[in-house]
Amino acid sequence: MLRVAVLTLFPEMFTGVLGASILKRALEQGQLAVELVNFRDFATDRHRTVDDYPFGGGAGMLLKPGPLFDAVEAVRSRMPGGCPRVLLMSPQGRVLTQGLVQELAREREWMVLCGHYEGFDERVREHLVTDEISLGDFVLTGGEIAAMALLDAVARLLPGVLGNQASAHDESFSAGLLEYPQYTRPAVFRDWAVPPTLLSGHHQKIAEWRHVHALYRTWARRPDLLRGYPLTDADRRWIARWEQGDFSGIDVLEPQHRAERM
Amino acid sequence: MLRVAVLTLFPEMFTGVLGASILKRALEQGQLAVELVNFRDFATDRHRTVDDYPFGGGAGMLLKPGPLFDAVEAVRSRMPGGCPRVLLMSPQGRVLTQGLVQELAREREWMVLCGHYEGFDERVREHLVTDEISLGDFVLTGGEIAAMALLDAVARLLPGVLGNQASAHDESFSAGLLEYPQYTRPAVFRDWAVPPTLLSGHHQKIAEWRHVHALYRTWARRPDLLRGYPLTDADRRWIARWEQGDFSGIDVLEPQHRAERM
Repeated sequence: MLRVAVLTLFPEMFTGVLGASILKRALEQGQLAVELVNFRDFATDRHRTVDDYPFGGGAGMLLKPGPLFDAVEAVRSRMPGGCPRVLLMSPQGRVLTQGLVQELAREREWMVLCGHYEGFDERVREHLVTDEISLGDFVLTGGEIAAMALLDAVARLLPGVLGNQASAHDESFSAGLLEYPQYTRPAVFRDWAVPPTLLSGHHQKIAEWRHVHALYRTWARRPDLLRGYPLTDADRRWIARWEQGDFSGIDVLEPQHRAERM
Repeated sequence: MLRVAVLTLFPEMFTGVLGASILKRALEQGQLAVELVNFRDFATDRHRTVDDYPFGGGAGMLLKPGPLFDAVEAVRSRMPGGCPRVLLMSPQGRVLTQGLVQELAREREWMVLCGHYEGFDERVREHLVTDEISLGDFVLTGGEIAAMALLDAVARLLPGVLGNQASAHDESFSAGLLEYPQYTRPAVFRDWAVPPTLLSGHHQKIAEWRHVHALYRTWARRPDLLRGYPLTDADRRWIARWEQGDFSGIDVLEPQHRAERM
């Protein structure tokens, strides 16, 4: 079982997400335990203050170190393994990747600090946090939604949480290519037909079609992903053709290539 | 006012997030309207089926095109501007950046489709969706949490939603550098003192300290961000020193540089 503690001033934000879908299932089946901790409970003054003005001036408030250190230490004292790993969701962190998600899914316990509006006193980063993680190059109001994303991504990798249902998605992604186009019934919807190869029943041709279309989509949309991908000679020949503007054999063209085809 | 429709099979996942913090405020103040639409309501059979097996075989189910097309068209008929923009949260999309968030905050209406477990029939991508957006290179169970992240990031940019409170964060980030370290009281916490410059009251020195530490942190953690950043000659001299392993003048070192300092 993975034990996670979430330190937040807005625990009520998590109810919808923890009560539905994959997180609900992981919690009910006991593969995951999530403790929501409001670190305002660790404020020591009668106004329960958790933030204060920054030294040196400037807009915004900062979360004070005291309540956060005390909250982390209280959680640690309750966790069997002492919860060494403390994550902070922050745009200054290491950008979240599926590799990091896999790493966190193998742990036994961790906690995640969510700031909200305010920044953190640097001593929290320096002496309390072990991993600063960024969801990406955009600004959220707080770490709460980022923590939900992390919890969801991790929960679905815990043993027994997902059936085979969604595992195919993973495989495609972690294999380093974007997914190939997929179709379901009806075979013709509003005049748009499914590519005939996929209806052929010819397994080898279908597998080839899927590989070439996944490669094409990745080449067109995310060429950066191909740097780490082991291209075969056949893959290289396809890419050479696309670089010449020759998209014959590709049934599902990206918008920017549709004109060239005609 | 920005009008957003969210098409999802799990509308209840959104209650916690829409009922708290920035999204609650934007909704209450009328800068944002969010309509949650369960596209299962647009299924036409008595089992309210929204998914089916993929042509060509393989694990997983796919969302059928019919209910999604019908749901999108119903939403469009209710929106004053006909809601031309249809977003799909998907790991195959364009990676979300603050620039795209700003663009979406300037729109009047858009809708976002959330898949869950299942993939989408490609005809949804090709003929219905105008923007495929990825939160990053990791796999979520559905688009719901990704849509929440997008809503939060956009809501905080709508005029009047945020005070000055969090705007400083934005400026720092959109200026192209990571944030500088910040501190609040107490000046000494558990033996860890605030860097003296920040307590000096010398505004020019504080501004310089902050700039150099933001530059250092960006250089150390996210050198990719510096490619687009207009470095001054002084910036280049700092970076040249750091490249030599000379970190004098830097009060808040990254872990990998602490040993070199000693």
